[in-house]
Amino acid sequence: MSPLTPMLSGADQLLLPIEALGTFAFAISGAMAAIRSRFDIFGILVLAFVTAIGGGTIRDVLIGNLPVSWLTDALAISSIIAGCVFTLLVYRWIRMLDSWLFFFDAVGLGLFTVTGTHIGLEAGMSVGVAIALGTITGCFGGVLRDVLAGSQPLIFQKEFYATAALSGGLIFWGVLEIGDALLIAQATGIVSVLAFRVVAVRYGLGLPRVAMRER
Amino acid sequence: MSPLTPMLSGADQLLLPIEALGTFAFAISGAMAAIRSRFDIFGILVLAFVTAIGGGTIRDVLIGNLPVSWLTDALAISSIIAGCVFTLLVYRWIRMLDSWLFFFDAVGLGLFTVTGTHIGLEAGMSVGVAIALGTITGCFGGVLRDVLAGSQPLIFQKEFYATAALSGGLIFWGVLEIGDALLIAQATGIVSVLAFRVVAVRYGLGLPRVAMRER
Amino acid sequence: MSPLTPMLSGADQLLLPIEALGTFAFAISGAMAAIRSRFDIFGILVLAFVTAIGGGTIRDVLIGNLPVSWLTDALAISSIIAGCVFTLLVYRWIRMLDSWLFFFDAVGLGLFTVTGTHIGLEAGMSVGVAIALGTITGCFGGVLRDVLAGSQPLIFQKEFYATAALSGGLIFWGVLEIGDALLIAQATGIVSVLAFRVVAVRYGLGLPRVAMRER
Repeated sequence: MSPLTPMLSGADQLLLPIEALGTFAFAISGAMAAIRSRFDIFGILVLAFVTAIGGGTIRDVLIGNLPVSWLTDALAISSIIAGCVFTLLVYRWIRMLDSWLFFFDAVGLGLFTVTGTHIGLEAGMSVGVAIALGTITGCFGGVLRDVLAGSQPLIFQKEFYATAALSGGLIFWGVLEIGDALLIAQATGIVSVLAFRVVAVRYGLGLPRVAMRER
Repeated sequence: MSPLTPMLSGADQLLLPIEALGTFAFAISGAMAAIRSRFDIFGILVLAFVTAIGGGTIRDVLIGNLPVSWLTDALAISSIIAGCVFTLLVYRWIRMLDSWLFFFDAVGLGLFTVTGTHIGLEAGMSVGVAIALGTITGCFGGVLRDVLAGSQPLIFQKEFYATAALSGGLIFWGVLEIGDALLIAQATGIVSVLAFRVVAVRYGLGLPRVAMRER
Repeated sequence: MSPLTPMLSGADQLLLPIEALGTFAFAISGAMAAIRSRFDIFGILVLAFVTAIGGGTIRDVLIGNLPVSWLTDALAISSIIAGCVFTLLVYRWIRMLDSWLFFFDAVGLGLFTVTGTHIGLEAGMSVGVAIALGTITGCFGGVLRDVLAGSQPLIFQKEFYATAALSGGLIFWGVLEIGDALLIAQATGIVSVLAFRVVAVRYGLGLPRVAMRER
């Protein structure tokens, strides 16, 4: 089962191509980090997997949804392997694809967040915890990627990445609460995350940091 | 459910303020580490959470106590958020609070260790494994904090931190075994950890390290 | 239960000494890494444990086999503590034992991989996922060791370490599929991993890396 499966039925099938593209983009981001850290082919594969399924894995473990979903999700596994092969073929020119990858990544972030939030709500968690689980689903694959690659997690210093996820989860919940129309809530959540990311990157917005002047 | 919940009843309610203070102190330690690593507000929040609930989460996952307890523990979540807000307000003067924070942290370490050991015993683990689970509950939030902040885990090099936890777990078990009075065993365990920490820090005691002179 | 337990019966008892030696070697590798990072005695113990049981723990958590098996595996726990004591006694001369440790480590890698693959198959996973779980069982203790010691995971850059595991898992599955004789499949898998490692280290073989010349 993919992060989607628990709610897959009818209209939700529409999300499958989005999931594949998002997973693909996350896998590429992991594979690129591995190449930058001079990992071998195996390391590239592992980092692509960890980036793409790390967030959903942590969520599934926290709520006890075991075995974790990607173990039986052929679409996710295929998308990750495709992402690795693609990266190996084009990594020298990957800068030219930056805007496509940014787009896929933002869409994947939106989908994973919305999916994770939904799974949290279905598991009977409170709203705040469900949105936190959605944010973990969207963001923590990247955290694991950075820890394994030996660098400080980017997400804690990056333009509104987690904030976009958090807001998308909140908007998804709000729309779902008002209208009880799952597909509309999902679409609104994903589009919100995408919009947040585009605006944040275009205008270089970031969360405030705290100046370290201890006395 | 908090790390305490499985045994919450009657007298145990007395431990709630201790739990809140310990969680608060752990959250501050995470938030301060995040500020030192120049994380943004979101990173501060995440590191506060990871530090405060990381140990209990690893314990719950290892023994299969899922969903992990903090997901439904409003007191823990509130204490962590309070710790973040407090840190942001006073971090410039936080050195002046050092002895209070040290005190809360030692009390929290004692409580988490005693609680984790108790949960391990209740789950049918052997004494050694239960005490190990208690030590993990008390110490591994700090390990995760340091890994995410990109530094080597402090605990492996710090004055008797883990040793204090280990000893407290052992003493808790011993007193429980002799008297079968839970509250007395808990109090003795917590006070022992506090005493160990005070003595270790005052006299700069640490575990021996092994000089690295490979031939 | 050890990584072996779910299939322990009759002939499988033959694997117990192999498991003890493999765990012993993994624990030594963790203890040595801790000494190199100047950890104290407690840090040495933790790193020995994490290295020896980390892979099996991740596997057990992913498939929901909780509580994780080592919590009740007295043989594994004793082997790890023996590995720590041994390291502390002889670490100055440990270079002289290098070939023995390499041999034990390769045998342990083979056994853990074969065991993990088998557990994955028994849990109803597809072949690819089962072999991945086997590789995780064999290799990810070392990944956690390196992350906690603050260095980049060696395995992503080392001569065919993970590839040896992967191939061993595949061969184990193939032989099991053909003959349905578990013990023969296990022996073939373990010997394959050992052979791979010997050849790879003798001839300095490694997986290709990707030259980082982004344009």
